[in-house]
Amino acid sequence: MSLTTQGMSWQDVAATAQKHRDDTIAQVEPAVPDTPIDLPKNVTGLPSQLLPKEVVQITETTPETLLSQLSTGELTSTAVTTAFLQRAGLASKLVNCITELLPTRALARAKALDDYYATHNKPIGPLHGLPISVKEHISMRDLDLNAGFISWVGQKGTSDALILRLLWNAGAIFYARTTEPQTLMHLETSSNIFGVTVNPFNTSLTSGGSSGGEGALVGLRGSCLGIGTDIGGSIRSPAANQGVFGLRPSSYRLPLDGFAATMIGEEHIVPVVGPLSTSLEGIKVFMKVLIDQKPWLHDPMLVPFPWKPTGDLLRRDTAGKRKLRIGVLRDDDIVRPHPPILRGINTLVSKLSGHPDIEIVDFPAYKHDDAWRIISSLYFADGAAEEQEAIDASGEPWRPLSNLIIKENPNMKALSVTEVWRLTGERDVYRAAYTKHWNSIGTSLPGAGQEGELDVAAPLAKEMAMVDVILCPVGPGCAPPLDCARYWNYTSQWNLLDYPAVVFPTGLYCGAEDKADETYTPRNEKDRYNHELCEYFSFFIGVLGKKRRTDADHSDKPETYVDAPISLQLVGRRYEDEKLIEALELIMEVAKL
Amino acid sequence: MSLTTQGMSWQDVAATAQKHRDDTIAQVEPAVPDTPIDLPKNVTGLPSQLLPKEVVQITETTPETLLSQLSTGELTSTAVTTAFLQRAGLASKLVNCITELLPTRALARAKALDDYYATHNKPIGPLHGLPISVKEHISMRDLDLNAGFISWVGQKGTSDALILRLLWNAGAIFYARTTEPQTLMHLETSSNIFGVTVNPFNTSLTSGGSSGGEGALVGLRGSCLGIGTDIGGSIRSPAANQGVFGLRPSSYRLPLDGFAATMIGEEHIVPVVGPLSTSLEGIKVFMKVLIDQKPWLHDPMLVPFPWKPTGDLLRRDTAGKRKLRIGVLRDDDIVRPHPPILRGINTLVSKLSGHPDIEIVDFPAYKHDDAWRIISSLYFADGAAEEQEAIDASGEPWRPLSNLIIKENPNMKALSVTEVWRLTGERDVYRAAYTKHWNSIGTSLPGAGQEGELDVAAPLAKEMAMVDVILCPVGPGCAPPLDCARYWNYTSQWNLLDYPAVVFPTGLYCGAEDKADETYTPRNEKDRYNHELCEYFSFFIGVLGKKRRTDADHSDKPETYVDAPISLQLVGRRYEDEKLIEALELIMEVAKL
Repeated sequence: MSLTTQGMSWQDVAATAQKHRDDTIAQVEPAVPDTPIDLPKNVTGLPSQLLPKEVVQITETTPETLLSQLSTGELTSTAVTTAFLQRAGLASKLVNCITELLPTRALARAKALDDYYATHNKPIGPLHGLPISVKEHISMRDLDLNAGFISWVGQKGTSDALILRLLWNAGAIFYARTTEPQTLMHLETSSNIFGVTVNPFNTSLTSGGSSGGEGALVGLRGSCLGIGTDIGGSIRSPAANQGVFGLRPSSYRLPLDGFAATMIGEEHIVPVVGPLSTSLEGIKVFMKVLIDQKPWLHDPMLVPFPWKPTGDLLRRDTAGKRKLRIGVLRDDDIVRPHPPILRGINTLVSKLSGHPDIEIVDFPAYKHDDAWRIISSLYFADGAAEEQEAIDASGEPWRPLSNLIIKENPNMKALSVTEVWRLTGERDVYRAAYTKHWNSIGTSLPGAGQEGELDVAAPLAKEMAMVDVILCPVGPGCAPPLDCARYWNYTSQWNLLDYPAVVFPTGLYCGAEDKADETYTPRNEKDRYNHELCEYFSFFIGVLGKKRRTDADHSDKPETYVDAPISLQLVGRRYEDEKLIEALELIMEVAKL
Repeated sequence: MSLTTQGMSWQDVAATAQKHRDDTIAQVEPAVPDTPIDLPKNVTGLPSQLLPKEVVQITETTPETLLSQLSTGELTSTAVTTAFLQRAGLASKLVNCITELLPTRALARAKALDDYYATHNKPIGPLHGLPISVKEHISMRDLDLNAGFISWVGQKGTSDALILRLLWNAGAIFYARTTEPQTLMHLETSSNIFGVTVNPFNTSLTSGGSSGGEGALVGLRGSCLGIGTDIGGSIRSPAANQGVFGLRPSSYRLPLDGFAATMIGEEHIVPVVGPLSTSLEGIKVFMKVLIDQKPWLHDPMLVPFPWKPTGDLLRRDTAGKRKLRIGVLRDDDIVRPHPPILRGINTLVSKLSGHPDIEIVDFPAYKHDDAWRIISSLYFADGAAEEQEAIDASGEPWRPLSNLIIKENPNMKALSVTEVWRLTGERDVYRAAYTKHWNSIGTSLPGAGQEGELDVAAPLAKEMAMVDVILCPVGPGCAPPLDCARYWNYTSQWNLLDYPAVVFPTGLYCGAEDKADETYTPRNEKDRYNHELCEYFSFFIGVLGKKRRTDADHSDKPETYVDAPISLQLVGRRYEDEKLIEALELIMEVAKL
């Protein structure tokens, strides 16, 4: 039963939820340190100053190394869990990324695993003793399940979501639940329950969203592996904003059973669940452990196809030599990415160019505006009736980005079944056209815009020469200032197409070299909005843009983007998740990332 | 442009379409023989009396043997195509299964293939020279595309459907287009365009539907391999009624691109395309040839998973011995199958029992009534607006079975998007429960009706012991009299669950041994209806049932079911299409079918 139905005001509900969060953080032993009164904008250096050395060491270790140390007994589950509980508590004090910690449950589980290890002298499973953080709307038995709505606070999960049961079976420990925005449909993380989750690299910027609690927590190394969800960029935006790895898998590979959200039963645009991690290996372990357990034996929506081992999935040329053809999509022709994003792409491309296994080709956008029209029409096909009801039931205010995607979304309206079918048909036509477009890049096959019957035999001959993966931005800039993440299309494009997409850090950060292009004339209103966000760069580097606002407007913004991580996105063909990861492994190896 | 929009009455449209059909049959050379005035009820013996010996020999050869003979040059494409054109023309005169023959196109193609063979001394592809028949609503360039609606007659296909282009690339020849019912949503085949397609084994019975033209044509050996579609039983019902093989594959394995039908864009219950054939090998060749061409490179809705070779897909026990556990579902607990169906199952089970590789267990039904409620609510979620418009536009009458599934369907109503989501959610809950039910049969795992958290680890240990396939009826009886195929649930059950299902002949036919159970008390109205269809058996065997109607009612029905083939259905888990076929291969080998 929700708290508002018990007569509480929305403000009291929020206070209750926040007090509960604070209480759970206060339960952690040794106590989570308090934070300094004067915090720098970049708080990523604070944990190593404030936490014991052992805690810092454990929490800054990659998941694969931790798993190795846990499986050999070098580390106990209790030590690892205690370390992550402490660092997660501190992270929440710094960037507000936690809805509750679970010290009692987690330490009991850790002890049980340590006892198991002591008795059997072996790990219980491939995730033995590894703490995993979980986005709030993924059900845990007897714990709150609110999806960012005040009116849902107090509803409890009746059982653990299937994905958690599978991870648990493999030996995982759940110790932290993370924040999400009102409606789950922002590329930021702000709700009236917990407020705003900010970016640890620069707290004037957003952590991204909707899995922004995960992004901020993993970015601050309060977690090495966390679970997010994505229907328009919600795993990838926070992964990118914090410079960590994040995977949006192809649909129906991982189970969604037991999630709280609006629009349950909607299948025109399928949400997915996936990992965020401090390492690419963490992403792989997560996928493999889940799929190896044949989750389709419990969730019949899933495709029953095994996780392929990476290492030999890339193409071979006729001489047997490994080949990776990367299509580079710098710009979607609608909103031009900010200078640091283009710098990130160009830097990486120059590192890859000339490598004998890698070929770089341009990948032009194909009607990405049409993709946005279709997906943004289908998101809330009931006219957002469920979201309106869930928000208005408590009297809580609409957050700015809820307004953006619902009330200010020109494509949003209550559709009839006939209209849904028509749009779904348009989605399928667009998908087929994009496939034809992809097939045509760098080959002699006809593209989507060209006339002529498809010669179905030709692709078999030409398949060897097709683009394998697309390298592109994750968004039109690095993490933007709060409430400014208004452009979804660099991520939602791949949701519409159901292509797997992985986000990775370039090792670069926004800095003085990222100058705004003073001469640029925006193409349209969205581009103008994004370009004006560029003016912050002008401020930062001391150049006054033509259209710059008064100093007073930006008096607190001279360092708006400084230290924001520059991340990129690699996109694969549908259900080529494993090949996509192998391609990124090669890219990281060659570019020395 | 359709003919009715040009001002023709529906009767004139039908006459035009029928004349076109007759003209195309008349174009076949040598001429298709006329049929005797007094036809027996069972017309399956007539082709061998009326056609030249060589034609009979070719058309009664299995597709795999024909392919072998075509690939070695033992037979020419022209000879094979000519033979099937003749027999298909005769079949249409006997049972009304053809919408048009394509002698000119087909023979030109055959000549080109023969020329290719003469030049290269090898076949052009794995289907070199094989004639394939095609259900009318699968688009062919410049040919009619009407889906059984008078008002659509005259609309032309703008291109060949992708599946036809892929088959063509492999060497196939398209020579015949086959009938389908008004709306495509009957388990029979009657339209106001071409009338009724009847069953060649007993022309007082239905050929089934909606791929009933294919069923009747393949049943009469006017085709050895044809293409049907299935959203509720439309491949399997005609395959069963004519005692041939038919496969409903799992969804999204074969391309639907280029089909004419209502409800395009609907994806709650996904239609599939699949083969009907005189041999199981024909089914396999069809699937393999298509999937080997990677159709997902053209149709991105498809799952990009290869066709697995059969031969080693069945389970092995710990000693490495092949094991097949068959769950037998004799009755769905709603409508009890007629005596010949139960005889068919029991005869087969007794042949299989005791074989060391095979284990037989009972597979109880799990809420199949709920499955029907959900699927029949979702079929026409727009309130059948498209069907009503397509029928009423011409003034053609509603066929009885169109009324049945639309106007008399208590679950049919125009749904809101919210209602569709709710029902889709119920579908998913049902699918999950059925999965749990399947997992529990013959194991110690909890079933769907039982309490208790699922122990996700247990299935891995128990998987070896799970049921592999379900053996069940295809319908509640053999082919029923015309307009009596009112019960879909033995086939639509597996559409709701998206399980692959293959129909096969038992080698048995309805006869004097199939006695109605005079003592049976029907469970419900549907069961009563089906049981009263049983009374025909009483008549046939000269026993007067308690409820029998007057002699006058049935004066023409003394032999109603005689000679109707008894077929059965084998059902696999989702995406285990190949394993399902291998299971049937073992069953046929052991039972000597």
